[in-house]
Formats: sequence, C-alpha cells, structure tokens
Amino acid sequence: MQKHFADRLVEAIKTKGNPICVGLDPRLDKIPEFIRKEAFEASENQGQPLRAAAEALLAFNKGIIDSVAELVPVVKPQVAFYEIFGHEGMRAYEETIDYAHEKGLVTIADVKRNDIGSTAEAYAEAYLGETKVEDESMRVFDADSVTVNGYLGSDGVKPFVKVAANDGKGLFVLVKTSNPSSGELQDMFVYDEVAREKEAKALYEMMGFYVDSWGADEIGESGYSCVGAVVGATYPEQAAKLRKIMPNAFFLVPGYGAQGGGAADVKPCFNEDGLGAVVNSSRGIIFAYQVEGTGYEEKDFGVAAAEACKVMAKDLASVL
Amino acid sequence: MQKHFADRLVEAIKTKGNPICVGLDPRLDKIPEFIRKEAFEASENQGQPLRAAAEALLAFNKGIIDSVAELVPVVKPQVAFYEIFGHEGMRAYEETIDYAHEKGLVTIADVKRNDIGSTAEAYAEAYLGETKVEDESMRVFDADSVTVNGYLGSDGVKPFVKVAANDGKGLFVLVKTSNPSSGELQDMFVYDEVAREKEAKALYEMMGFYVDSWGADEIGESGYSCVGAVVGATYPEQAAKLRKIMPNAFFLVPGYGAQGGGAADVKPCFNEDGLGAVVNSSRGIIFAYQVEGTGYEEKDFGVAAAEACKVMAKDLASVL
Repeated sequence: MQKHFADRLVEAIKTKGNPICVGLDPRLDKIPEFIRKEAFEASENQGQPLRAAAEALLAFNKGIIDSVAELVPVVKPQVAFYEIFGHEGMRAYEETIDYAHEKGLVTIADVKRNDIGSTAEAYAEAYLGETKVEDESMRVFDADSVTVNGYLGSDGVKPFVKVAANDGKGLFVLVKTSNPSSGELQDMFVYDEVAREKEAKALYEMMGFYVDSWGADEIGESGYSCVGAVVGATYPEQAAKLRKIMPNAFFLVPGYGAQGGGAADVKPCFNEDGLGAVVNSSRGIIFAYQVEGTGYEEKDFGVAAAEACKVMAKDLASVL
Repeated sequence: MQKHFADRLVEAIKTKGNPICVGLDPRLDKIPEFIRKEAFEASENQGQPLRAAAEALLAFNKGIIDSVAELVPVVKPQVAFYEIFGHEGMRAYEETIDYAHEKGLVTIADVKRNDIGSTAEAYAEAYLGETKVEDESMRVFDADSVTVNGYLGSDGVKPFVKVAANDGKGLFVLVKTSNPSSGELQDMFVYDEVAREKEAKALYEMMGFYVDSWGADEIGESGYSCVGAVVGATYPEQAAKLRKIMPNAFFLVPGYGAQGGGAADVKPCFNEDGLGAVVNSSRGIIFAYQVEGTGYEEKDFGVAAAEACKVMAKDLASVL
C-alpha cells in the first residue's frame, strides 16, 4: 500500500517549495497549431476527428507536464474537456494521468462525481481503486485523488473515503465553490429543525463540518486527512471560517488568476504551518504563451507555462 | 431542430401507456455467463479485458433494449458502471445510447455532472449538444437528457439549459435524492440572511424553487419544461411538496422497487393529469432473471426484463 495521501501531498509541496496545482484544462482551439496539425495529419487518425483531437490534447498535456514537472507538486486535469471528445477523450484522460505519474506529479482527477451506494463505489473504483474484470483486478484511471460533490450526504461520500483510505488516495469535497453564483445555495443560512435555537450557520459551513467528520478517522502523519475540501480563492472571508472548521483538511483552491483571486485572497486557505492548501491555476499557466505582449511563439508554450509557474510561486511565497 | 424535450417525453409515455424508465446499470458479474464468455473469447478482445468487459455490457444492454423497447418510453444508463471500464466503457456508453435511439427510446444520461462556466458548457456539449473539432461539429454522447447536480447554483445549471433549449434536449436537476442520508443536507431548514422573518424552507424546497425558475422560460406545448427534477420515490411527503413548487417540471423518480419505494410512494410525484414523472427501476428489471423462484434461465434475461416491465406498469397504473 502507498503512503497516506496527505503525507505524499505534503512531501511533494515541500520538495517543490510551493503549493501550485496546474489545471490541465486543454481547449482544442487554444492548443498550438503545430500540435493540432501533427495530430490531424497522422495516418492513424485519418477519418477519426475525435481521435485526432484527443491525440492533440495528450501531446499538449505532455508538453506542459514536461515543462512544469520539476517546478510544481500537483496537476489537475478537468475531465469535461476530455469527455467532450467521447471515449477517445477519456483515453487521453487516462494517459494524461499516467504520464503525470511517470513524471512524479500528484494528480487530482477533477470529476466532481456524485452518486450513492454501489454507484458511488463504482466511481471510486474507477478513479482511485481497482476495477474487477472476471478474475483480474486492474487500475483504470488511477488518479491520486478526485473531487466529489457532497449534495447527497454521507452515502455519496463514504464509498470514496473507503477506497481512498485503503489505497493511499484522497478526495476533495466541494464546500464553497469559486463561481459568482456559488452563494445561491451554499451561503444560505441553515439550521436543523431540532436545533432552531442554536446560532445559524451557512450551508457551506455545514458542508465543512461534514467534511471534517468524514475525514476524522483518516488523518496521516502530517496531521492532514485524506478527505479535503474545495474552497474558492474568490471568497477569502468564507475560507477563513472554513479553515477553522476543518483544521485537518487540505483545501483545493480554484479561482486564482484568471477567475480573479490573488495571493492575499488565498492566504486564509492555509494553516499557520504554511501548509493545508494547493492553489490551482489552469488557463493562466497552460495558455500563458497566448498572453499578449509577452512575445512568446507557439513553440514556446512549455517555456511560457514554466515561467508562469515561477511567477505564481513567487506571488504565493509573498504571503505564506 | 427536434421537438421540445418534454413534448417528446409526453408523447413517448402516452404511446407506451406507462411512465417507466429502465435503468441500464449493468454489473459485469450479474450479466449472463454466455454473454460474458462470448465477449471474452472474441479474438478482437484477446489481451484486452476492459474491452471485453465493455463488449459484454453492450451486448447485454442490446438484449435488454430489444426486449423492452416496445413496452417502455425511457432508458437511463448510469455512467459510473461504464466509466469503471475506462475509455472502453465509455465507448459502450456511447453505443448504448445510440442503440436505444435506433429502437425509438428516449434516453437520460445519468451522469450527475456539475461545474461552472466553460466547463459546464463542455459537459453540456458532450452529452446534449455538439462537439466542435476544427471546422466540423459532431455529436458525441448525444443523449436526450442528462442529470445535473445543482450545488454550484445557476452558473452550473444554465449552460445545460441553454444547450438543451437549443437542441430539443432536457435535464433533471437533483432536488431530493432517494438515499437514506439525502436529508443530511437536503432536509436542513434554510433562510436567506435578508429574509429571516419568513417561514423557513428545507434546502430541497429551495432547490425546487430554483429548478422552477431555471425552467420557466422553456416550457413546451405539453405544459412541461425541459428542466426537470430528480425526486426519490422513498420520500413521498417531500415529493408532494415539490410537486406544488415545480408544477411544470418533469420528475425523474429513482428508488422504486429495489430501493423500497412502491406505487403509492410515487403517486405524489405525478400531476393530476397523470403525467409529470418517469419512474426508474434498474436492478428490478434488468436482473429480473436472477430472482429466486421465478425459474428463469440465463438466456431468458430479456423475457424476464419484459415481464418485470409489465408487472411494474400494472402496479403504477393502479395508482394513476
């Protein structure tokens, strides 16, 4: 069995000297033309545009991974950008995760899966555990961790916790998301019918209490649990509250950069030990070569991504 | 452009004379041995166990679809049971949906996807709309509808509504799920900070109000919207409240049969016109051949499924 997920994550963050997660959210129309051209002209992809697109995604990802693997601890491929190319895209998703592991990166499969009972188990086995096929067992997507939506309650989360705990893997439950409308439901004040007298809490705080309890029995040597939380960089006040509610949870923090969050905004996501969060940037890193005025050419996409990681690391270091 | 999704659904329900949705949730170890044997012995699947497993799933699904297509209006493949076999499983998922359409069935891709902005758009394009690949556009999963988790608020749902409305497709947002722990979050009483004086509502009711508003501009000739709701058969009291909150929403009702809901429990999900809900059964239909004492052999799995549909239709008719 592998070491505890949170301990592996802490080790990776310390080795690289920063808590950056590079979001591998490739958009076909933003991938350098020379990569697309090669994929679409390859003889084995003729007449199979979805396969060619998936090959272009994979080649681009490999270029990004090669450029950032020495610099950052974590990558997070967002599965929607692969599913859009059907099963060919999902093959590229599997191979992207495998390639990131070959290069020593910790992976977060950003899939936001959610279901109950045996269905949740199937997702957990697919992304974190093993698939049984007749008398064999094999790993399919084999990510180090997944994102999970907890709207269905414990039934929908515990099957992931079980597989994660058994396999040195982890999960991040959506708590307070980074988008403008996240408050519509997540910021509503809630109370139990039986506890109306108590001080009301926001729904995202209640989700935080649940995440804390789901992960309470699965804390590693680092003091962190294998059950983490997604907390957007765009809501620093809420993050500060959540940091207290979930002292042992690692936060996965989207919303830095392109979505508007800065270093000061992500600071409340960290504990006083300077740990406890990984900060994601997707477009700001992988498409850094397209930023106007930087003078990068298409072939420099990897160099530009590496440079963007260094700038982000320095920015984060200024507040940690 | 296709006809409005809800109008197509109503038409299919009236044609078949029942509101049954067959859940295509195949488990490899429950598929008849002769189907598995053929898939695993096929020369093109040698050394590719995931491919063989996916082929077995597909062959089983085709057998079920052939047996029930004349009897029921809707099928709902649950994607977790395909994702567990990786990209090969996803190919079987695509082909299952295509085959169901060939046989005239309405399809619900039970994927419970959720994300924001361009990511939600990518999911919507993948499952309901078109994928752009360079200068071409093509349909990938091409289901008639999807299930969506609304925890992220409007940002996470409206991209699906937009694609659905443009393409004669639909969606079902999780409101009150059928599982035992669904109440942990969904039953909490909530109120807006600015409206503390008002009567508190349960979170699932608030989600119901949102669903009603998301679908308000997309109502078809049948009086139903392309934005529906998932409401578990296991919570009839809550269903009755939700029926009033969302008069124009179609309910997708899981939890009948194996999960414990009976015909009386699903009745509150329907409107007085006898429409407004589709009731799902998965294991109770597709694995009916395994029920002890029925005397079915493996080769009878389709006959058993058809018989189970007829029994369920009669049971539902007794309360509608």
